[in-house]
Amino acid sequence: MIATSCKNKEELQKNYEKMIQRYEALKSEGLKLDMSRGKPSKLQLDLVSDMLGVLVDHAQCIVDGCDSRNYGELAGLKCAREYWAELLGCKPSQTFVGGNASLNLMYDVISKAYTHGLTDSPRPWCREEKVKFLCPAPGYDRHFRITQSFGFELIAVEMTPDGPDMDTVERLVQDPAVKGIWCVPKYSNPQGYTYSEDTVNRFANLKPAAPDFTIMWDNAYCIHEFVGEFEPFPDIISLCEAAGRPNMVYEFASTSKVTFPGAGISVMATSEANIAYQTKLLGVQTISYDKVNQLRHVRYLKDKAHTLELMKKHAAIMAPKFEMVVRMLKEELSGQNIAQWHTPKGGYFVCVAAMPGTAKRTLELCKEAGVTMTEAGATHPYGIDPQDSMIRIAPSLPPIAELEKAMQVFCTCLQLAAWEKMLQD
Amino acid sequence: MIATSCKNKEELQKNYEKMIQRYEALKSEGLKLDMSRGKPSKLQLDLVSDMLGVLVDHAQCIVDGCDSRNYGELAGLKCAREYWAELLGCKPSQTFVGGNASLNLMYDVISKAYTHGLTDSPRPWCREEKVKFLCPAPGYDRHFRITQSFGFELIAVEMTPDGPDMDTVERLVQDPAVKGIWCVPKYSNPQGYTYSEDTVNRFANLKPAAPDFTIMWDNAYCIHEFVGEFEPFPDIISLCEAAGRPNMVYEFASTSKVTFPGAGISVMATSEANIAYQTKLLGVQTISYDKVNQLRHVRYLKDKAHTLELMKKHAAIMAPKFEMVVRMLKEELSGQNIAQWHTPKGGYFVCVAAMPGTAKRTLELCKEAGVTMTEAGATHPYGIDPQDSMIRIAPSLPPIAELEKAMQVFCTCLQLAAWEKMLQD
Repeated sequence: MIATSCKNKEELQKNYEKMIQRYEALKSEGLKLDMSRGKPSKLQLDLVSDMLGVLVDHAQCIVDGCDSRNYGELAGLKCAREYWAELLGCKPSQTFVGGNASLNLMYDVISKAYTHGLTDSPRPWCREEKVKFLCPAPGYDRHFRITQSFGFELIAVEMTPDGPDMDTVERLVQDPAVKGIWCVPKYSNPQGYTYSEDTVNRFANLKPAAPDFTIMWDNAYCIHEFVGEFEPFPDIISLCEAAGRPNMVYEFASTSKVTFPGAGISVMATSEANIAYQTKLLGVQTISYDKVNQLRHVRYLKDKAHTLELMKKHAAIMAPKFEMVVRMLKEELSGQNIAQWHTPKGGYFVCVAAMPGTAKRTLELCKEAGVTMTEAGATHPYGIDPQDSMIRIAPSLPPIAELEKAMQVFCTCLQLAAWEKMLQD
Repeated sequence: MIATSCKNKEELQKNYEKMIQRYEALKSEGLKLDMSRGKPSKLQLDLVSDMLGVLVDHAQCIVDGCDSRNYGELAGLKCAREYWAELLGCKPSQTFVGGNASLNLMYDVISKAYTHGLTDSPRPWCREEKVKFLCPAPGYDRHFRITQSFGFELIAVEMTPDGPDMDTVERLVQDPAVKGIWCVPKYSNPQGYTYSEDTVNRFANLKPAAPDFTIMWDNAYCIHEFVGEFEPFPDIISLCEAAGRPNMVYEFASTSKVTFPGAGISVMATSEANIAYQTKLLGVQTISYDKVNQLRHVRYLKDKAHTLELMKKHAAIMAPKFEMVVRMLKEELSGQNIAQWHTPKGGYFVCVAAMPGTAKRTLELCKEAGVTMTEAGATHPYGIDPQDSMIRIAPSLPPIAELEKAMQVFCTCLQLAAWEKMLQD
């Protein structure tokens, strides 16, 4: 809380009234702007739509002796497994290529853990008295919701610029009821932090009490730099193997933000034992995933080098948006001690830590002025941010002119909310 | 069992020895033929591969104001829901369009019933002391395996040419532990029987003790006639609604045998209340299914009339195969009282009821001679056919010349197995 002297309070009241006028002016424009989700823009979709034309000939559908159009190859086309292995730095035999949503593969792992148990489980998690799951926060609402939907107890772990607070993680995993943790190791959602090498090593060397403790390693932004070059990142699978717990980690990635969000391909990468175990369970659920789309992707994306070139083109669209967001935050908010943020080099979000107790009010004001943002609290387990502070900005969808307007509204609302609070206190 | 007199036995022995020679000759050909699964042939896949070219332009990806490439529209594109509603004779609001596998939608319903319960469940099925599931047999192995994988007790119900024995079904559903039944109402897998109107009505009017009893209505072959015209079939959803239990049925279908087995689209059709309930649960699991492929399908298949025209072309490829299978069964096996079969007008299978105690032996002999068939017992719960009699023939995959050879092997093996048994008895 900021101490506000009487003189300052008078001045604040004046500024507040000016800001109210600015807010009313923005509101009267009848805006309808969306910064709520990490959706690529139309420009990005058009950028990759040539992919639709790379597989139109009958003869092209057969690859490595497998007809991609027919049933079969549950773990994915050979070429698709090789593609992902190169991208993630693991072996093709450690990959399982799924449908259009890596979220679905994550859900399946948790769901199977609940109904059948995982490779090293003594029993299905639905037969455990209690299941607890670690949720580094701020984090990704859809992750938290999966584990919440199965009735697990969600435990928030503080995020730092180096990743989750590992002292806390190492302490909590001593509890055998703690069965896993959600991670977005590169350009974390929403802060854009990349886990340090030390953090990654401490993850690989965890010695949890639960034999089936599972690291859900959602490498969603593994090649999603929008500033600078591709940053290599350690392969968690071989690190866990070297540390003697090869089945402890499941890694996930997708092309949702490389090609099409709704029509990409996804991958689960983990130990061969886990792949064998999951393949058996998933074989009850489906005969195979969409291999035509897998082949379409491999033909279009080719390999890692070619994919990184494409990511540069996405970056050219994304970077100006992030630059504008950060520039406006700086211009409007810096020096006031009412908001903090990290300037990310990749990923899809900027996370603003507003003055405690003002996030909800800020977003309420935004909504009234026609700007939709991710709900306050969404970054935390159960949708409750105890500080009422974290706000996720998703600048990817709106065209840049709309984004500028949306950020004007946002900065106005954040200041209004902060000043309101300061005037009340 | 057939009474065999001494004189007959002598003659049988002679015929048996002749047949052994024929078998050895076939075996020496080193065949490698597959009649194991209902896979469409390459000819059928080529027939529909023009679909790959109908959606290559960026502008075409946007339909009804929705960009099929981006996230969103969990229940499917409007045009895809309308397409399926017309095909199945229900309302678009009663449909949920999924990914490439209707099996996955079926699995999801059972899995959600287990983990969360269904619309009218007092509790998740994993909290029930016992769950029993009815399995009309012979039936589809993948259905049975889903419910088996969750530890349900599978109860076989006899199939008749009119569908499952409804007296038995009506009796068994008095048990509140009986939570559902698997059905393939049109051209049942594997016998090719279509449920009679009376059977369908008795299903709709079931009064099960379990409030969440669920009919899993897998209308896999809803438009899959290969002989004669499309046969209209009652809409089970409106019948259940009229009978006062609108949430009792989930219907499923897909384009796996219309376009591509591995890259089609699927649908779940059920009451609006069930759609709302499942959409909420599935929204935790995925953001949306592959809408680009949904749009590709709607552009290619257009509507029911156009789809039925395409099915005529599939029929032109399928019919000669089924004709050959039935002709060879007749020529080789009729009059001997060692095998029975039904001649289907649609679907993907012919089911042969071999002399009890000879199905396994028949398929063992086939395998030795290089012909792969669906495992004996697969048509029954737990993979155990108590009569050891039912054999599923899947004639769709092999080219017709290979199929003829495979059927020669099969008829030879079936006779050998029967005669072996008769000579032993």
